[in-house]
Amino acid sequence: MEDGAPPVRESVEFARIVAFTDGVFAIAITLLVLSLDVPAGLPGSELDDYLGDEWPQLFAYFLSFAVIGRFWISHHRVFSMLHGFDRLLLAINLAYLALIVLIPFPTELLGGYSDESVAVVAYAAVVGSAALLSWVTVRHALRHGQVRADARGTAHWVSAGIMHSVVVFYVSIPVALLSPLAGQLVWLGLLLDTLRKRR
Amino acid sequence: MEDGAPPVRESVEFARIVAFTDGVFAIAITLLVLSLDVPAGLPGSELDDYLGDEWPQLFAYFLSFAVIGRFWISHHRVFSMLHGFDRLLLAINLAYLALIVLIPFPTELLGGYSDESVAVVAYAAVVGSAALLSWVTVRHALRHGQVRADARGTAHWVSAGIMHSVVVFYVSIPVALLSPLAGQLVWLGLLLDTLRKRR
Amino acid sequence: MEDGAPPVRESVEFARIVAFTDGVFAIAITLLVLSLDVPAGLPGSELDDYLGDEWPQLFAYFLSFAVIGRFWISHHRVFSMLHGFDRLLLAINLAYLALIVLIPFPTELLGGYSDESVAVVAYAAVVGSAALLSWVTVRHALRHGQVRADARGTAHWVSAGIMHSVVVFYVSIPVALLSPLAGQLVWLGLLLDTLRKRR
Amino acid sequence: MEDGAPPVRESVEFARIVAFTDGVFAIAITLLVLSLDVPAGLPGSELDDYLGDEWPQLFAYFLSFAVIGRFWISHHRVFSMLHGFDRLLLAINLAYLALIVLIPFPTELLGGYSDESVAVVAYAAVVGSAALLSWVTVRHALRHGQVRADARGTAHWVSAGIMHSVVVFYVSIPVALLSPLAGQLVWLGLLLDTLRKRR
Repeated sequence: MEDGAPPVRESVEFARIVAFTDGVFAIAITLLVLSLDVPAGLPGSELDDYLGDEWPQLFAYFLSFAVIGRFWISHHRVFSMLHGFDRLLLAINLAYLALIVLIPFPTELLGGYSDESVAVVAYAAVVGSAALLSWVTVRHALRHGQVRADARGTAHWVSAGIMHSVVVFYVSIPVALLSPLAGQLVWLGLLLDTLRKRR
Repeated sequence: MEDGAPPVRESVEFARIVAFTDGVFAIAITLLVLSLDVPAGLPGSELDDYLGDEWPQLFAYFLSFAVIGRFWISHHRVFSMLHGFDRLLLAINLAYLALIVLIPFPTELLGGYSDESVAVVAYAAVVGSAALLSWVTVRHALRHGQVRADARGTAHWVSAGIMHSVVVFYVSIPVALLSPLAGQLVWLGLLLDTLRKRR
Repeated sequence: MEDGAPPVRESVEFARIVAFTDGVFAIAITLLVLSLDVPAGLPGSELDDYLGDEWPQLFAYFLSFAVIGRFWISHHRVFSMLHGFDRLLLAINLAYLALIVLIPFPTELLGGYSDESVAVVAYAAVVGSAALLSWVTVRHALRHGQVRADARGTAHWVSAGIMHSVVVFYVSIPVALLSPLAGQLVWLGLLLDTLRKRR
Repeated sequence: MEDGAPPVRESVEFARIVAFTDGVFAIAITLLVLSLDVPAGLPGSELDDYLGDEWPQLFAYFLSFAVIGRFWISHHRVFSMLHGFDRLLLAINLAYLALIVLIPFPTELLGGYSDESVAVVAYAAVVGSAALLSWVTVRHALRHGQVRADARGTAHWVSAGIMHSVVVFYVSIPVALLSPLAGQLVWLGLLLDTLRKRR
């Protein structure tokens, strides 16, 4: 890496980056379950009430599982288009992972306080910024010739899709300051849009 | 993946899916230990009492370790029969993992409240639904020609076995509403049945 | 695996077992840090006192890190001697992992209550039983021809060493019932013995 | 390993060490998020206050993410220079990992008590000692001919850089005893120095 030549795709180093990233994704997605608490020593009827109030937490769990899973599939696709990487791309990837790993924190916030602006804003800020760094990764790889020749068209198309998500999450921030529910509905719009295009 | 041709078994992409899934399994199974609490600053005699009351938690730990381990062996066998996968199978696999990762939550519920219907029902619902998605995976792969030609007979046989588990866990739900203990005995029947067939 | 022929060492299946086991080891060893608590909102002088009382927890952390690390190196050596495995060896390996994953629990007990018999007994029981299952793994592989021909002598020698650890930990249990400190000194004897032989 | 010949780089054993180490790094870096707590059941205005006071925790999270990430990149580079390893290097690597895994603990201390000497000292001691063991790894590999011939020059240069970090963190310890803030500014000096050299 010292001499500026990017390691080739087949190298042990490339495989280690990918494996490390996958490991971090796998752990972050699994830690989401820790936001679901079981209280100790409640009588039976209070347990039912407690669990009955825990649906927002369960919803937040599945939402974030889908969000992190989506990021992972996207990362998977981006890295399959690379034939190498440089030190800066490694650093961007780490900063991106720092935001992915953070997701369980705003998830727990959202699960406990879905009707508070601060929770919705925190969630949108973390997820939107992770998407932004994902976009930066693709643009950096394109600009520095690290995308395989046969994948450049796809890479441009993928980066446009990622930027769309960035805009949606960032736009939801001022909306959530006015109404937390409306902010979350903006995300729902993104989801429906994705499903529509898939068909 | 864009052109509809499923990646072949030997591809980096297939290996990444498998490694990610294994990572998630490994973490979910390990997080089970977090349901076992150590209280701070008890006097010696109270510690003995506390640990004496923790056998149900330890039982739930080993039960869920066996359940997740069994799911992992089954997933291992199913994926060894595939020669490729499409985007939908990837999505089904993620939804399946969302339920596997959730298992520590009903495990902690069951450890703390094994005599409450809601705990037994939650456990059966999560485990039964994970099994259902496992069955959907095999059926999807069979229907879309993603199973290796020499493994199709085995795949049909495996999917029947998985459906058997789905039925047992779903049947235990109404039973547990009447009697939590009876619901758990239904699971025991599945275990004994499995051991009998093995011989 | 259906036809009884053990998968060869080079197969994807063997690699998945090894990777899964390594993942579980890596997570169990890392979760040890969660036994070290940071209290919220203490004034400065009380923080010093709190941390001053946390040395036993730190000692238990390093002890269990060494123990799990030692188990991992041993597992690493055992599996490098195999040229295949059968379904029963897979099951034994899972039961072994259930005990490895459990280690953070008696570690936290030992850190908080090193002068209570129950904590020392729990630690010795879990670690001794994990060692016992490790010994069963080697004996099973030897008996069913799953050890490489050139490694059989080493395997016999390794299994004798593991049985030595089993005996030490099980012997420490009745000792700890009389004196928790004496029980821990029995373990120290094992450590010194290992270091002496290494030279 | 028994006969003293170090396993070659291509062996399964080398790959397992690297994969295990990467797994431990991935988990340790991900557990950092657990230091960020979400309080249950606060009214909205108090939630804002609570989160407003949590910036030091968030800062500590990103600091430690960068520190562990930096260690991982460095480890990655050191291991890419090896063509083998012996049993002692494996033991040094495990002791090094015990300190990496410990980092979430002083991170949580620093997040909660950044104006207390004991928190800054604990952080510097753990990070400085991890760097020291990293330096010991490179020196050991150089002394015992485990560094690839074409990488020896780089290895000497890398070990000098690591020793520089060791000195900075150890020097910050007496400084932090006088002033916690000054101790943290010493670390900042290291960061700025690294960025300056990079250009």
